[in-house]
Amino acid sequence: MKEQVNKYNWEELKLFVVNVLTNLGFSNEDANLASDVLISADLRGIDSHGVARLIGYKRLLDKKRANPKPNIKIEHETPSTATIDGDKSLGLVSAPYAMDIAIEKAKNVGSGWVAVNNSNHFGIAAYHAMKGLDKDMIGIAMTNASPIVSPTYSKDRLLGTNPICVAFPAKKEPALVIDMATTTASNGKLEILQRKNENAPTGWIQDANGNSSVNPSEVQAGGAILPLGSDPEHSSYKGYCLGAMVDVFTAVLSGANYGPWVPPFVAYLNPLDNLVGKGIGHFVGAMRIDAFRPAEEFKAHMDNWIKTFRSAKPINEKNKVIIPGDPERESEKVRKENGIPLLQKVEDSLAEIAQSLNLEMIRRIR
Amino acid sequence: MKEQVNKYNWEELKLFVVNVLTNLGFSNEDANLASDVLISADLRGIDSHGVARLIGYKRLLDKKRANPKPNIKIEHETPSTATIDGDKSLGLVSAPYAMDIAIEKAKNVGSGWVAVNNSNHFGIAAYHAMKGLDKDMIGIAMTNASPIVSPTYSKDRLLGTNPICVAFPAKKEPALVIDMATTTASNGKLEILQRKNENAPTGWIQDANGNSSVNPSEVQAGGAILPLGSDPEHSSYKGYCLGAMVDVFTAVLSGANYGPWVPPFVAYLNPLDNLVGKGIGHFVGAMRIDAFRPAEEFKAHMDNWIKTFRSAKPINEKNKVIIPGDPERESEKVRKENGIPLLQKVEDSLAEIAQSLNLEMIRRIR
Repeated sequence: MKEQVNKYNWEELKLFVVNVLTNLGFSNEDANLASDVLISADLRGIDSHGVARLIGYKRLLDKKRANPKPNIKIEHETPSTATIDGDKSLGLVSAPYAMDIAIEKAKNVGSGWVAVNNSNHFGIAAYHAMKGLDKDMIGIAMTNASPIVSPTYSKDRLLGTNPICVAFPAKKEPALVIDMATTTASNGKLEILQRKNENAPTGWIQDANGNSSVNPSEVQAGGAILPLGSDPEHSSYKGYCLGAMVDVFTAVLSGANYGPWVPPFVAYLNPLDNLVGKGIGHFVGAMRIDAFRPAEEFKAHMDNWIKTFRSAKPINEKNKVIIPGDPERESEKVRKENGIPLLQKVEDSLAEIAQSLNLEMIRRIR
Repeated sequence: MKEQVNKYNWEELKLFVVNVLTNLGFSNEDANLASDVLISADLRGIDSHGVARLIGYKRLLDKKRANPKPNIKIEHETPSTATIDGDKSLGLVSAPYAMDIAIEKAKNVGSGWVAVNNSNHFGIAAYHAMKGLDKDMIGIAMTNASPIVSPTYSKDRLLGTNPICVAFPAKKEPALVIDMATTTASNGKLEILQRKNENAPTGWIQDANGNSSVNPSEVQAGGAILPLGSDPEHSSYKGYCLGAMVDVFTAVLSGANYGPWVPPFVAYLNPLDNLVGKGIGHFVGAMRIDAFRPAEEFKAHMDNWIKTFRSAKPINEKNKVIIPGDPERESEKVRKENGIPLLQKVEDSLAEIAQSLNLEMIRRIR
C-alpha cells in the first residue's frame, strides 16, 4: 500500500505555523522562533518532530498546560551556568532562550551550561545545539520526555526516549551533528511501521509484561521502547544509562520532573499527582572552540576527521559510512527545493487547527 | 575448566605498584596517584584496567613512548576551560591533574572543562569522574583509545572503545556512576571468552571483511569490535556516533591523535607515521551542583530517583534493575575484605616486572 503524500512549500508552512501560534496568543517573536524550530524538523526529515506535533502543542495550550505568553526567568546563575524557569512555555521557545544564555556565557568565560525546568517538548535537539556553530562553538542539547522506555530488566516505563545532540563545527566540510534518541528505535519509526501494518524487528520493543515483541503498537498497550542495545546481552543497560544521564541533567539538576513523573505530551493524559518538579526539563551547553585551541586549527582537523571517516572502506559498496548530520542536511536541501511531504493524517490535523482558529488552510504545492 | 585464581591484599598490591613505578622513575607522588587509579579498577571489578595493565604501561615506559617524569603544562585556558599537554605521561597521572584543574575552575565559575593531549591510557574513567563527588560536583571523564572499533557499514578500524563516565552525587544513597565503553562489548569481555574458549554472542564483533563473527579472537586477526547497537537495524550508528563524539572531544579539541592515528597501547605496535596530533587524548569536566540548584535539594532528589529505579517492577524476580555504580561498589567492598583475585597470566606478568626490577614479588593472601 503506497501512501499518497502531498507536498508543501516550507516557507508557506512556516508562515502558517506563525499564524496559528500568534492566534493562540504567542508574541510575533516567539511564534517565529517556535515555527522555525518546528519547520527545521520537517526540513531535516525528522517528520515526527515537525508540524505533525502542532496539534499536540495546541491541545496542551488549550488545556493551559502550556503557556503562550511565558515570562521565562533566570532562577540562579554563575559565570558559566544558569537555571531557568520556562514558565510552562513550549520548549520550542525556552530552549533557544536557554541556548542564547549558554552562548553568551561561553563568550565570556569559555563555556556556558543552562538547565531548564517548567518547560514542554522542545522539538529537535539539533536545532538548539546547532545555534553555536556559526560562532565557532560546540553546542549540546538534551531533553527528557514522557516515560515510554523501560530500564533493563524492568517492565515499568520510567524514561523517555531522552535524546542527546552534540554539534561540532568544521571548516570546508559541513558540521558534524550527532542527534540521537537513547533508545534502539525512535517512536517515529514505530509510527511508520504501524501505518504500514508491518512488524518491528526484535529488540525494539517489549510488551506490558516485559516480553520481547514485534508489534509496533505495543507501546500504546502498556509495553515499552527498549534502551539502545536492546537486550542485556547487547548491553541495553548502556542505553538505559544514557537515558538516565539525560534525565538527571535535564530534570534532577534543573528542578523539573524526572522518571515516571515527566508529564505526558498527549493532552488527554493528565500528569501524575505529587509531581517532583516543574514541567519537563532540558539541558543545553555551548563551548567556545578557541577556549581550547585555535578555532581554525580545530576546524581543519574536523575536516580531516570527516574525510577520513567518509572514505572508510565499506563492507558493501551499497552502504558507505555515514557522517552524522549528512542525511539531515541532504533532506533539507531536497525539501527546500521540492517541498515538505506531509501524510494525510498530518494534513488533516493542520486543517482541523485552521478551522478551529478560522484561518485559511495552507495549499499544497501540487 | 575452572581457572585457579589467587587473591592479593589490595593495600599490598598498591604498595607493590608504587614500588614498581618509583623504580621506573616516577616521583613518589605520581607513583602513588597512578597506583591508586590502577588498584581502584581492580577493586571495582574492572580487571582489564587494573594491575593487568601494569606490564603494558612498563613496556611503553621502556620504549620511551611514555614519560615517567612528565612536565605537564597548561597550554591554554579561560576561566572555565583549559587544554593541557601531558608530556607523554600516563593518563593515570595526567587525568587526575586535569580533573583537579576542572574542579578548581568549577569552584570559581560554576563549571570547568579540561582537554588533555600527549597522554597515554588513563585507567578507568570512573576514577577521574568521581573526584568531584565529595565536593558536591558532577564529574565527567572520557578518553579515546587504540582503534579496534569499526564505524557502522565499514571494515576499517577507526575508533577505540572510547568510554564515557558521568558521576552524580546523592545524599543517603550512593552516587550514581555511569561508566561505559561506547561499544556493545568491552575488550575485557572478549578476553574472558578467549580464556574460556567460548564463543561470543552475535553482534559483538565482525571479522576483517566486516562479516558478523562469534570468534572472540577475531579482533587480533584484523576484525573489529562493534559499536553499541551492534547492527544498523539496532541503531549501531548511535554507538558509532557516541564513539565519534568522544574522539572529537578528547582529541580533535585537545590536539591529540584521533581516529586511526591513535597510538596503539601495545608497545610492540608502532604509532603510524604522519601523526595528526600528540599522544592520545582525554576530556574531563566538573560542574558544581549549587551552580544550578541547592546541592542538598539535588541530592535528596537523586535519592528519590535512585529509589524509584531500584524498586522498578522486574520482568523476572531474579534480575532487578541495576543502579549504575552499584555492582562496582559491591565489588569494592568484597575485594577490600577478601582480596583482589588475579589470573595466573596477570600474576606471571607482575612476577616478570618484579624480576626485571629486582623487586620482591608480592605474596598471595592464600
